Amino acid sequence: MIPAEVPERRYAILAEGWFTNRHAKTAHGLIRYGKDEVVAVIDSTLAGRSVLDVMPELERDAPIVGSLEEAPSPTSVLVGLAPAGGRLPEEWMQTLRQAADAGLEIVSGLHQRFAPEFPGGKVWDVREPPRDLPLFSGEGFGVQPKVALTVGTDSAIGKMTATLEIERAAREAGVRSEFVATGQTGIIIAGWGVCVDAVVADFIAGASEQLVLEAADRGADLILVEGQGSLGHPAYSGVTLGLLHGSCPDCLILCVAPQDEEVFAGVPRPAVARAARLYEEVASLVKPAPVVAVSANTRGLDDAGAREFMAAVADETGLPAADPFRGSSGPILEAVLEAPKTRPTRAQP
Amino acid sequence: MIPAEVPERRYAILAEGWFTNRHAKTAHGLIRYGKDEVVAVIDSTLAGRSVLDVMPELERDAPIVGSLEEAPSPTSVLVGLAPAGGRLPEEWMQTLRQAADAGLEIVSGLHQRFAPEFPGGKVWDVREPPRDLPLFSGEGFGVQPKVALTVGTDSAIGKMTATLEIERAAREAGVRSEFVATGQTGIIIAGWGVCVDAVVADFIAGASEQLVLEAADRGADLILVEGQGSLGHPAYSGVTLGLLHGSCPDCLILCVAPQDEEVFAGVPRPAVARAARLYEEVASLVKPAPVVAVSANTRGLDDAGAREFMAAVADETGLPAADPFRGSSGPILEAVLEAPKTRPTRAQP
Repeated sequence: MIPAEVPERRYAILAEGWFTNRHAKTAHGLIRYGKDEVVAVIDSTLAGRSVLDVMPELERDAPIVGSLEEAPSPTSVLVGLAPAGGRLPEEWMQTLRQAADAGLEIVSGLHQRFAPEFPGGKVWDVREPPRDLPLFSGEGFGVQPKVALTVGTDSAIGKMTATLEIERAAREAGVRSEFVATGQTGIIIAGWGVCVDAVVADFIAGASEQLVLEAADRGADLILVEGQGSLGHPAYSGVTLGLLHGSCPDCLILCVAPQDEEVFAGVPRPAVARAARLYEEVASLVKPAPVVAVSANTRGLDDAGAREFMAAVADETGLPAADPFRGSSGPILEAVLEAPKTRPTRAQP
Repeated sequence: MIPAEVPERRYAILAEGWFTNRHAKTAHGLIRYGKDEVVAVIDSTLAGRSVLDVMPELERDAPIVGSLEEAPSPTSVLVGLAPAGGRLPEEWMQTLRQAADAGLEIVSGLHQRFAPEFPGGKVWDVREPPRDLPLFSGEGFGVQPKVALTVGTDSAIGKMTATLEIERAAREAGVRSEFVATGQTGIIIAGWGVCVDAVVADFIAGASEQLVLEAADRGADLILVEGQGSLGHPAYSGVTLGLLHGSCPDCLILCVAPQDEEVFAGVPRPAVARAARLYEEVASLVKPAPVVAVSANTRGLDDAGAREFMAAVADETGLPAADPFRGSSGPILEAVLEAPKTRPTRAQP
């Protein structure tokens, strides 16, 4: 689950021509939330400037350089964005070959696997699932730390970032917490994890359970699991439910957004209160996990609009609502800390 | 999706020492429900007897012989049961090598893959998913035939057999119907299908949708999809939900059994009415699919007990209940035929 070849990474981020592209969210996530050092971003179109100069919201600075040679002693090169059409352009592959020849690790969250391209090199294909994953065993039912999982009314609604912000707030409050990454960007940020949508279907729950057991072994008192997909997304709901049951959460944080978008053509986002109730009901077939707070992604609203939306959501659900990107994760963290541990359904009093 | 190497199979079933074992359900299913011919069962401990002599409930006869040489011109050898511990014993592998040398096809539903063992031979590893499965596209929303899916209060509760019996009843009633196989035994019976629990998690719904599109291409007016797992089974619920959304059913048949068993240690079977309501609610996040009938597996009950159980279930749910293994699939088929086609949630009036 944890690639051990490079214990302390120093990243050069390969971002030639696209560093400020919004699809470069793995690069941005690594800079803002990553535990590892970022020694440089490689993008010759911005060479000489700095990360905070170009994207102040990333909160951590690094030089932007024109080539790999100019990056100050990296251990690892991140490939964070696939161009439309799939395979990397030959120019990027040249940089990666140069990195491999220099003994650097290549880290990729793309669907394309790089290990076969660089035989003998250090390659971390983040989406590649571990071998010999077990089926769900039930061991997760007995885990000691409290487990909270983010779920959503849609996919791509900000579950990963909400989880990271709440985990950061927990650490700042002195709670021994652990972020459990279940997708490629989260894994690169955390340095460990499993892409639960990349495992064989029979093992979604088993992989999710193993992640929680691993987080418990790391000494956490509070485990915050990054959710995936949505219970009502026809393409990804299987992954969502396998993660919901497999990670054995004690409580849920429901991630919502104000836009009345469709989850999928013909399929609307469910109402917030209905989504909360359904997540709870489906979870409680196995183990109760009440929704204790709503994380509202209010990007695009002004302050007044955001306040209004959060008040409406709180009113609809009777739950605390906050936007961890705007202001504070406090009310959400408080609700999570107050939630009790739960036991499997049969064992309920 | 359909291995084309052997268009009309004539099976020899390799069952040395275990033909009457209850775990040999792939062999039994192929004999009772299979579209392909079965020319012999190989089990030297029963040689000279016949299938109906030993297991009359299988409804189709074939000679039991002591060795592959005695089987009358098979095209294919089925390996239907894995011994405890995993790999096949050397004695069985010898028979398979002999079959491969004779140009016969080896058909296996085991987790172990046989293609690498017999390079150049004809091998159908039934659990091996097709390459290049697409993500869910929504094309299934527009499929013309009616689609019914079996779901259950538990895994291993008889969904496959119920689906096969209802499909047989439909054919006997003159309905152009197609059984959609989603697990290894069903696939060997039908001669095509995909093990939806063996695909990469992201593709559960896409694989399920492709199966329904394929069944529609085959000219069916009624598509009966074999369900997998259970919404409340912590190990398999992801596969269950991916199949529920991906196959775009218009209605559901809920499979139940009288035993008050646990789904998983600590996790009870849900009450029948609650399970029905939850399946409907989760389906309707994407596309409504009402539960229109209950298929009761009353094995182990006497006739009076079975009638009593079916009456209780019908009373609890307000739905027709029948045991397709005992008496008739008629009430279930009737309810399915009466159910309307449905459209995705946004498109509802």
